[in-house]
Amino acid sequence: MIFEKIDRIRDFVREKKGQGKTVGFVPTMGYLHRGHAALAERARRECGTVVASIFVNPLQFGPREDYAEYPRDFDRDCRMLEECRVDALFHPPVEEMYPGGFCTHVEVEGLTGCLCGKSRPGHFRGVATVVTKLFNIVQPDRAYFGQKDAQQALVIKRMVEDLNMPVEIVTVPTVREEDGLAMSSRNVYLTPEQRAEAPVLYESLKEAARAVSGGERDARTLAGMVRERLSGLKGAGIDYVEIRSLPDLKEVERLDSPALLALAVRFGKTRLIDNIVLEV
Amino acid sequence: MIFEKIDRIRDFVREKKGQGKTVGFVPTMGYLHRGHAALAERARRECGTVVASIFVNPLQFGPREDYAEYPRDFDRDCRMLEECRVDALFHPPVEEMYPGGFCTHVEVEGLTGCLCGKSRPGHFRGVATVVTKLFNIVQPDRAYFGQKDAQQALVIKRMVEDLNMPVEIVTVPTVREEDGLAMSSRNVYLTPEQRAEAPVLYESLKEAARAVSGGERDARTLAGMVRERLSGLKGAGIDYVEIRSLPDLKEVERLDSPALLALAVRFGKTRLIDNIVLEV
Repeated sequence: MIFEKIDRIRDFVREKKGQGKTVGFVPTMGYLHRGHAALAERARRECGTVVASIFVNPLQFGPREDYAEYPRDFDRDCRMLEECRVDALFHPPVEEMYPGGFCTHVEVEGLTGCLCGKSRPGHFRGVATVVTKLFNIVQPDRAYFGQKDAQQALVIKRMVEDLNMPVEIVTVPTVREEDGLAMSSRNVYLTPEQRAEAPVLYESLKEAARAVSGGERDARTLAGMVRERLSGLKGAGIDYVEIRSLPDLKEVERLDSPALLALAVRFGKTRLIDNIVLEV
Repeated sequence: MIFEKIDRIRDFVREKKGQGKTVGFVPTMGYLHRGHAALAERARRECGTVVASIFVNPLQFGPREDYAEYPRDFDRDCRMLEECRVDALFHPPVEEMYPGGFCTHVEVEGLTGCLCGKSRPGHFRGVATVVTKLFNIVQPDRAYFGQKDAQQALVIKRMVEDLNMPVEIVTVPTVREEDGLAMSSRNVYLTPEQRAEAPVLYESLKEAARAVSGGERDARTLAGMVRERLSGLKGAGIDYVEIRSLPDLKEVERLDSPALLALAVRFGKTRLIDNIVLEV
């Protein structure tokens, strides 16, 4: 079932909750891939009712970012959600989410000044605000986010904890193409040449993880290895390669507990991100 | 029943909701007076279960404001809440609400740059954040706020609407002393001389309202009348006297719809506020 109005999806959820069902929620921006399917399938296994949303949230795009061109294919998305046995899809128009006079924002400070937060000012404020809205609308028991967007998942978890939102956040492992490239709606932007080079992102992360297994603990050395490997890319520029603590994303000099190794790379106008947790 | 832990008040509310009861919520900073009682009594009439909270929220006080000295009398507050037949009181310690690492804030822009928001930078950010937390903890069907804090009520309403919080905000008329002084926990700070002068605040507001009834529509003239009247106060300084549109708090030149006439006055270190809606 597809709902465009806030009141209608609320009615749907209220009815299901009245039947004693737990509600799982998968918020997305559409153009779904197997990474999203993994979220929906996990929700399906764990919850009596599964709600997904498709909303390309203008608030989380910068003025020079790809909001207008963000890929959309609603019909294909609907088929995929049906295959995942999602019970309801919330697909609001922008004016339903942001009517005139809208002026409230949620900001998670401290976690958002680094990594993608630094490259994309205001991005996580937009994410935190729309996710707060979606949580208040759908009122799920559990919500599912992908580890590919590691900082986003940490920001959402922090927000939920800080604001005492009555929802459990579940982070689902990154789903990858056969050659290792992390699934992303933005992969469709890549030229064949860029697509052929893109698996190096994950290879460089795995290489660093192997070095950690081999005993390397110096964060600068490890990040340097990744940068070195990425510098071989012809059409790409590094946005960042950083090792940060979990779950606080503080700077790390020496690995003495699991840490996040995260990177962002630009292939022309296309910005791809990936990450790996370095276990020590 | 008194709860200091978030999990305990949640259990209480869950049980009541399971019994099909609607939940009314009265958030306060304690040192209760008849204004708070009016909120609780209204909640009592309208809801199956009434929850109050007492929490002096450090986040909404500026560094040079009266957080440490804010008046507290927990035992008297408890008696008053019992008399109002409040079912449960949530009274968390600061570390229960703001544990280490807390870094998320809710900001209602647009409504908070004027009036008290201008005099008290960060105040409404602290209010919006704590009210979001309290709403997520208590999950009330209705929450009750006093018209005395008119801007606060408008900010909360805007926040609830913008973030789709599933709660109805009820604004309750200002309760006054016999001589017209609006009830406030801070009235206790006043010296006898200041207390004797303080009724002029409401008198000046009523005088402006009478002028509107008599046909005056010019906002500057009306605010000027109030300022003129307040300038007669010996021990007091005007913080602001402003006429603002409802509910957007925009500047008003000519009254062609109901508007808020609001003032803040300092008696020594004690800052008092009051307001009246000018009906046209």
